[in-house]
Amino acid sequence: MPIARFLPILTWGKTYTRATLANDLIAAVIVTIMLIPQSLAYALLAGLPPEAGLYASIAPIMLYAVFGTSRMLAVGPVAVVSLMTAAALSNIVEQGTMGYAVAALSLAALSGAMLLAMGIFRMGFIANFLSHPVISGFITASGIIIAASQIKHILGIDAHGHNLLDLGLSLFEHLPETNGTTALIGITATAFLFWVRKGLRPALQKLGLGAGLTGIAVKTGPVVVVIATTVAVWLFGLDARGVKIVGDVPQSLPPLTMPSFSPTLLGQLLLPAFLISIIGFVESISVAQTLAAKKRQRIDPDQELIGLGAANIGAAFTGGFPVTGGFSRSVVNFDAGAETPAAGAFTAIGLAIAALALTPLIFFLPKATLAATIIVAVLSLVDFSILKRAWHYSFADFAAVLATIILTLGLGVEIGVSAGVGLSILLHLYKSSRPHIAEVGLIAGTQHFRNIKRHQVQTDPRVVTLRVDESLYFANARFLEDCVQNRVASDKALRHVILQCSAVNDIDFSALESLETINTRLDEMGVKLHLSEVKGPVMDRLRDQHFLKSLTGNIYLSQFDALNCIK
Amino acid sequence: MPIARFLPILTWGKTYTRATLANDLIAAVIVTIMLIPQSLAYALLAGLPPEAGLYASIAPIMLYAVFGTSRMLAVGPVAVVSLMTAAALSNIVEQGTMGYAVAALSLAALSGAMLLAMGIFRMGFIANFLSHPVISGFITASGIIIAASQIKHILGIDAHGHNLLDLGLSLFEHLPETNGTTALIGITATAFLFWVRKGLRPALQKLGLGAGLTGIAVKTGPVVVVIATTVAVWLFGLDARGVKIVGDVPQSLPPLTMPSFSPTLLGQLLLPAFLISIIGFVESISVAQTLAAKKRQRIDPDQELIGLGAANIGAAFTGGFPVTGGFSRSVVNFDAGAETPAAGAFTAIGLAIAALALTPLIFFLPKATLAATIIVAVLSLVDFSILKRAWHYSFADFAAVLATIILTLGLGVEIGVSAGVGLSILLHLYKSSRPHIAEVGLIAGTQHFRNIKRHQVQTDPRVVTLRVDESLYFANARFLEDCVQNRVASDKALRHVILQCSAVNDIDFSALESLETINTRLDEMGVKLHLSEVKGPVMDRLRDQHFLKSLTGNIYLSQFDALNCIK
Repeated sequence: MPIARFLPILTWGKTYTRATLANDLIAAVIVTIMLIPQSLAYALLAGLPPEAGLYASIAPIMLYAVFGTSRMLAVGPVAVVSLMTAAALSNIVEQGTMGYAVAALSLAALSGAMLLAMGIFRMGFIANFLSHPVISGFITASGIIIAASQIKHILGIDAHGHNLLDLGLSLFEHLPETNGTTALIGITATAFLFWVRKGLRPALQKLGLGAGLTGIAVKTGPVVVVIATTVAVWLFGLDARGVKIVGDVPQSLPPLTMPSFSPTLLGQLLLPAFLISIIGFVESISVAQTLAAKKRQRIDPDQELIGLGAANIGAAFTGGFPVTGGFSRSVVNFDAGAETPAAGAFTAIGLAIAALALTPLIFFLPKATLAATIIVAVLSLVDFSILKRAWHYSFADFAAVLATIILTLGLGVEIGVSAGVGLSILLHLYKSSRPHIAEVGLIAGTQHFRNIKRHQVQTDPRVVTLRVDESLYFANARFLEDCVQNRVASDKALRHVILQCSAVNDIDFSALESLETINTRLDEMGVKLHLSEVKGPVMDRLRDQHFLKSLTGNIYLSQFDALNCIK
Repeated sequence: MPIARFLPILTWGKTYTRATLANDLIAAVIVTIMLIPQSLAYALLAGLPPEAGLYASIAPIMLYAVFGTSRMLAVGPVAVVSLMTAAALSNIVEQGTMGYAVAALSLAALSGAMLLAMGIFRMGFIANFLSHPVISGFITASGIIIAASQIKHILGIDAHGHNLLDLGLSLFEHLPETNGTTALIGITATAFLFWVRKGLRPALQKLGLGAGLTGIAVKTGPVVVVIATTVAVWLFGLDARGVKIVGDVPQSLPPLTMPSFSPTLLGQLLLPAFLISIIGFVESISVAQTLAAKKRQRIDPDQELIGLGAANIGAAFTGGFPVTGGFSRSVVNFDAGAETPAAGAFTAIGLAIAALALTPLIFFLPKATLAATIIVAVLSLVDFSILKRAWHYSFADFAAVLATIILTLGLGVEIGVSAGVGLSILLHLYKSSRPHIAEVGLIAGTQHFRNIKRHQVQTDPRVVTLRVDESLYFANARFLEDCVQNRVASDKALRHVILQCSAVNDIDFSALESLETINTRLDEMGVKLHLSEVKGPVMDRLRDQHFLKSLTGNIYLSQFDALNCIK
């Protein structure tokens, strides 16, 4: 099915029934209502006008419905990607200018093209280099930065910065300018939303409401706050007292827009676009897989890349900004009973109606309210327990997550996540450059060989068997040379060295040369080198090489055979 | 022996006899004569006045004799490091200025400090990330660039560039300005030196000379050419016909000099100094280990770093430039019968006498002659057979060496070697991100399990055993999830999955979370997950984790036990 591979819609479209349609429609109505305040808020976070948030939810959802493989994923603006968008663009153009909005389109186009390319060339594995602890640390730190960046709206002051330090200093400097009325609205809204999450949920559950319905009820919190504060500003004319409001929003379907393809701009956006693509993909795929596992459905990572790529290119040409599959909106979709991507398409239609007809209703919506919804949403992302769990498991994982958190908070999202990935790779290489090499002996009465330091085993003074617990490659080839040399130099009785290769999954060219060196050096000392339990693929590689011809000893299928033959 | 660890001189100094002294003195005389033209030539290559080459051979040799562990290594200017020095400095200051010589001192000081620090903190393993094929490719490409850079001296023209492309274009542009007399001297000298290498050696060996003596005779070639061409220029006044000569060289012991420690300069030199340190260390340690193996002596890599660090710092304060242990000079030392580092100290005294008394003799030495000695020396480094051998072994190794050669030739030494290292690491990570996972079965009548695709084995339809041939870490954790999911989803009869972990040398935090995910998903499908042959260190790590408590199956010491218990 070459076409069905790129168009999953052909698979689920064939079995679409009236019952499915009903479920999808109900889910779409619920999700549309939830998405309106969320979309406006994330546009604000990305530094864009509010309508961009609506536009970014319409075409992308439709395109994902055609190309994506998850049946429940809801694509649109999400918190972390919006923060990364703001961080990337603020370095290049001034916020609030026309150039800023165009650069956002370019960022979405570039990121979409990268995702598409990774999908077509099946390079989704790149995302695997983001380790779990690095992602957790990054999301936690981003949540804190996002919350801090919204405090200015809550207090009605000015503040800038894309890391915690700059933000904190700037907030402190402008603190005396706090607008009392804005702060009252902002703090009340935040407190109410926290209560909805922490107090309302248990209360409803005590009343016997199901988890799904409770989840939906809780998620209407932002809608209630938006309506209440908008009405309050309108009734009491609070905008005249300095409360900043959303104001005029054009009544329009998503416009056709053209990203800038200036080479200078694209060059500057290259790294941010790559990071946004990877982070967005990882966030989206984990949500998709979690939801799919609940219904025994399969997700194809490469096809997901194509779906997200199409969604971002859609955003770029319809006045949006970078999007991805969001956790909270997808869960709402799932809880509301969506069955196919058609639910997403219906949601898009709902949002299009909102963009066309309902924008005058949000004229008086205070920005502080949007900030409150963001703060409450992102604080649920903050989870420092990853530090404790990683510490308990291994120092390397702990170091990677700690560095990611500190660098993201201190120096911003791009440096933070890059450093986290770099550090995990370095630590992994460091570990494999000093592999565990165990001297093993036979467990009496069995054919098993175990570490002489951990088990009661039989050994022979003329024979030493070293089990190398790592693939042999350039970073540890010389370490093995030293190890064998040290073991043999101190023991004059030795006549045979057996390298047990049961854990050697690969031997690269550098390691092959090191094995030749070891063979030559042992030969000069009158010691023979043998190999045992070499794996099939490794043996295939060695077969035609000079090393096998010059090897002084033999190669044995099992370590037990090796010991019997040598005796 | 805490002091003897840092001062190997205390070890060999204790057993120094009169016979050893005689051998060392003879070796020193021979090496001194060889080193004079070589030192002058490499100073020229580095873009420095000729005396810098002599100075760079005196203090460094002495300091290495005190701190180094190799008994035969000769430290001083070498071709590749001199090329890297010229490439690094030309980007920063203009060649021929006072600032250039001072920057060379700073480069040596910085590189020395880095080597010392790596030695003290036992970080020599960093050099292991330079794989054999990358080094071979880099040395080959550097040899070609060096040879090309000397053509201008052979022809008596001007040309610039630090990669093959720039050099070639520049040479072509200036070709019409060729000085006939210079070209005659240069080409004759080159041809003679090639004949000495290719023609004289077999002739002498046919006459029954030993390999050592032949080697020494061949290496006097440059001395002969230097004397002959100097006399020719002096006799016939060829300098008046445009032959460029060495000219006035101060008669002096190495001067005390002070490197610049300007932060801007040091910042610019940071990366080049690091690359020079690593390349110099790798070159030096392989020479040292090759020679030590011939006499069953041990080399301590960390102490070698300290020895080379001290040598470079010595060069920085005595008018030199970056140095390392050279292959050709060390082999001369070895062939001439040097027994201890004292031979090196005596060579240093010989060179000091030369710097003090003999420099007027080289006034008429043509630069074309020095260029000829460089060309012939470095072309022996060029060896494209590495490409063929790597191709024959594995595509990844071939790709790394090809990229290193092409990028070094096309973009220069710094980019070339960095790209080679980066690419080897990426290819290694890519390979380990898609590990070999074999489904295994029991070989009848044994306790051995082998790949069902390669061997005739017994299997049970209710049980599948997957042997994972790689450590589990972030880059392949998700791959394992997909693999297990795909195998189980298509086989309704399955009740047990056993992961045979005999080749799993490490499980990091990301992989632990993936194992938990696999366990949960299998549980939902009514399939139990078991582990077998988990290694000691891995088991230690898992012991206290939540994963073991939630595991639906068991952990077995051997795969054979696992199958018996499950049946």
